[in-house]
Amino acid sequence: MSAKYEATVTAPVNIAVIKYWGKRDSALILPTNSSLSVTLSQDHLSTRTTIRASPDFGKDRLWLNGAEEDIAASKRLINSITTARNLRAALEQKLLSEGAPAETVVPLSKWSLHVCSENNFPTAAGLASSASGYAALVKALGVLFDLPQSTSDLSRVARVGSGSACRSMFGGFVAWQAGVSDDGHDSFAVQVADRQHWPELQALILVASDKKKAISSTAGMQTTVETSELFAERVRSVVPKRMEAMQRAIAERDFGTFAEITIRDSNQFHAVCLDTYPPISYMNDISRSIVSLVHAFNAARGRVAAAYTYDAGPNAVIYALKDDMRDLVELVTYCFPRDDSTLLEAFYPNSFAIFDSADQVGQRLTRPEVAQLAETAGKFPPGSVRRIIHTEVGDGPRVLPDSESLLNDAGMPKHAKE
Amino acid sequence: MSAKYEATVTAPVNIAVIKYWGKRDSALILPTNSSLSVTLSQDHLSTRTTIRASPDFGKDRLWLNGAEEDIAASKRLINSITTARNLRAALEQKLLSEGAPAETVVPLSKWSLHVCSENNFPTAAGLASSASGYAALVKALGVLFDLPQSTSDLSRVARVGSGSACRSMFGGFVAWQAGVSDDGHDSFAVQVADRQHWPELQALILVASDKKKAISSTAGMQTTVETSELFAERVRSVVPKRMEAMQRAIAERDFGTFAEITIRDSNQFHAVCLDTYPPISYMNDISRSIVSLVHAFNAARGRVAAAYTYDAGPNAVIYALKDDMRDLVELVTYCFPRDDSTLLEAFYPNSFAIFDSADQVGQRLTRPEVAQLAETAGKFPPGSVRRIIHTEVGDGPRVLPDSESLLNDAGMPKHAKE
Repeated sequence: MSAKYEATVTAPVNIAVIKYWGKRDSALILPTNSSLSVTLSQDHLSTRTTIRASPDFGKDRLWLNGAEEDIAASKRLINSITTARNLRAALEQKLLSEGAPAETVVPLSKWSLHVCSENNFPTAAGLASSASGYAALVKALGVLFDLPQSTSDLSRVARVGSGSACRSMFGGFVAWQAGVSDDGHDSFAVQVADRQHWPELQALILVASDKKKAISSTAGMQTTVETSELFAERVRSVVPKRMEAMQRAIAERDFGTFAEITIRDSNQFHAVCLDTYPPISYMNDISRSIVSLVHAFNAARGRVAAAYTYDAGPNAVIYALKDDMRDLVELVTYCFPRDDSTLLEAFYPNSFAIFDSADQVGQRLTRPEVAQLAETAGKFPPGSVRRIIHTEVGDGPRVLPDSESLLNDAGMPKHAKE
Repeated sequence: MSAKYEATVTAPVNIAVIKYWGKRDSALILPTNSSLSVTLSQDHLSTRTTIRASPDFGKDRLWLNGAEEDIAASKRLINSITTARNLRAALEQKLLSEGAPAETVVPLSKWSLHVCSENNFPTAAGLASSASGYAALVKALGVLFDLPQSTSDLSRVARVGSGSACRSMFGGFVAWQAGVSDDGHDSFAVQVADRQHWPELQALILVASDKKKAISSTAGMQTTVETSELFAERVRSVVPKRMEAMQRAIAERDFGTFAEITIRDSNQFHAVCLDTYPPISYMNDISRSIVSLVHAFNAARGRVAAAYTYDAGPNAVIYALKDDMRDLVELVTYCFPRDDSTLLEAFYPNSFAIFDSADQVGQRLTRPEVAQLAETAGKFPPGSVRRIIHTEVGDGPRVLPDSESLLNDAGMPKHAKE
C-alpha cells in the first residue's frame, strides 16, 4: 500500500469592519481599497476541507457539503488550485535542482486532486461561505504541497479565488492591503493583532428573514465602480483614514472608536450601493430595525457599546465587548422572537451561558433600562430574525489529524449526498 | 362698513428632481446646493390660504385645516410674515415720501392678520405640505400688501419660512439657485420652463404605508452636513453638473436624461442620509419594491420610461410621459392592490380616465409585456400602497376671487374645527 498524500484543515469566517467593495482588476481580484476584518471563532463557523493527491485519480474533483461540483465551471477555483500547483511545481524543481534524490520529491503537482469541503453551519443561515471555503482550500493545498511560502504569501492564492478569503488566512484582526501593482504581488493579508490581543471582543450574527434574491456582490461591486459618483471619494479620501484609525483603535483596544468606525463604514458601503445605477439594496426593514435598536442601546448606555455591520445581504453582525453582551442578547432575543418552527437550540444555542436554561431565551430582561429599551422597540413578528449565532474572535486555519479526514480510503467523500 | 383688506390664493406642491438637503445657514435657510423641481397641478394638490388685515384684530392668528395654531411658536412663520410686513412698511413709507395722500396709503403693515389655510389633500396622504403652505402664505401676503417685488424676490420670503417653498412660487420647472452671499439675497427661485413647455409630463404619487415616525428633514439634513464624509463631494462635484444637465434635458424635453438624473439624484440623496451618523433611512421595503418595479418596467421598455424620486419619507413620486402612464398605472395598481378599507375613489381617482370604470382599477393589464412584468413582481399585501395620486405639471400660485375666501365676515374661519 502506497503512502497517502492528504491534508485536512479548517478555516474561519471573517467579517469586515472596513469593507471591501470594488475591484481595480477583476481577473486577479485586486481591490480598489484596503479592508480590515475580524476573524470569528471556528467553534461556531468554519469550513473543513480535505484534499488528497493521487496518481490514481483521473481528474480534479470537488464535493461541497456532500454534493459534487464542476470544478471546470469555476474560473475562481481553477485560479486558486492552479496557482498553488505552480508553487508546488516550482518547489519540486528547486528541490531536484538542489540535488534531492528524485524518489524523495513526490510529483504532487502533476497528480489530480480530490477536494472535499463541509461547513459547520447550515447553508440556510445565509452566510457567505466563500471566504472560509477558499481559505480552507488554500491552507490545505499549502499543507499538502508542503509549500514554504508565508501565510501572507499564501493569502494571495486565496485572494485570486475569492477576494476576502485572503483575510481568513489569519486569526484575530486582519488587514487586506490593497496594493498598487498591476500583478497583485503587493495585495495580500497581514495580521494586525492576534486573537489573544483582545479576547473580550464578541460577535452576534443575526440571520434576518429575507424573500428576495440579492444581487451577487461580484456583479454589484463592479456596477458601483462604474456608476457611483461618490465611490471614488470613498476610496480616495475616506478609507485610507479609516484604515489607520481602525488599526490604532484595535492596538489600543478602544472599543468606542472601533465601533463607531465599524458602523460608519458599513453604512457608507451601503450608501455607495444605493448611489449605484441601478441602485443596490442589501438591507431590508428588519436590518434597519436592528440598526435603530443598536443606536437606541448605545444611547441608553451613553457610549458606543455595540456596533452593527452588514455585508451583501440583510444579516446583521453586531460586535460588542463580553460585558455588554448579556444585555444585548436579552434585548435582541426579546425584540426578535423565535418562530415556533425553529428549535430553541437552533435559534440561539446559548454557547456563552447567557441564559440559565434554554426556555429563558427571549423571556428575560434582567436590567430595568434594557426592559425599557425593549418596551420602546416592541416585539417584531416572530421569525424576523431566524437565528442568532453568538461567537467571538478566533484563530486562523487549523491543521487537523488524519482521523478528521472527509475522504474515505478510496478518496471519496465519507458523507456523500445521494 | 369699512373696506375689507383680504386676499385668497392657492399654491402648488413641488417635487424635486435635484434634491435640496443641507443648509449653509439655518436661520436664513440658505442651502448647500442648488435644487430643481417640477410644480404639480393644483387641481390635485394645493393649499388655499386667505389672509385678512384689520385694525380690529387684536393679534396675528392662524388656522390650519380648521384648527388654530400658535403663530408665536413657529419661528419660521414669524420669519416669513415679518419679512413680508417689512416690505409693506417700506412700500408705505415710499408712497408717503413720494407725496401720496396719507388716506390712500392703508397702514396694513401695522394691522394684525388672520391667516386661514386648507389643503385639498388629506393629511393622511403623508405629503409634505410646508412648500405649498408657505408659498400660499407669501403669495397671499404679496397680493394683500400689493407688494411690487418680482416672484423671484418674493420666493426669498417663502424660503425663510420653508426652504423648498421658494420653488412653489412658480409653475412648470423651477430652479432654486443656492447663491453664495451670507445675507441670502442671491438664494431664490427662478422658472426654468413653464408648464406649457412640456405638458406631456405626468406624475404618480404612491403613498406608502409606514408605521415609524421619520426623523424631521430639518434635523436630518444638518446631521448629514456635520457627519457624512461623502456629502461634501455631492455638493462640490455632483450637483453642479446635474443642475446643468437637468436644465438642458428639460429644455430639450429629453425624458430619458431627465429620468436618469432624477433617479440618480434621489438615490444619492438617500445615500448621503445613510452615510450620516447615526444613519437616516426614509425609504422602506415598499419603497424599494417600487424602485425595483420601475427599473423592471424600464428594462422591459428598453429605455428609461419612468423615474422615481423619494423625499424624506417612504412615498414614491414617479414621473413618466403621458403615453407611458396607462401601462404604469395598470402595473402599479395591480402589484400594489387596494386595501378593502380604502374606497376605490380614494385609492385611485382615475382623473385621467385610464380605466373605463372604477371597478377596473387593479384588475386590468392591457399589454402582454406589462402582464408579464406584473407576474414577475407579484402582488404585494393589500394596502402596502395606500393611495395613488395621478397628476401632471402645473402652474404657479393662483389668486382667487373674494367668493373663495376661507374667512367669514367676522374674519373667522368658515370651516372651523371644534
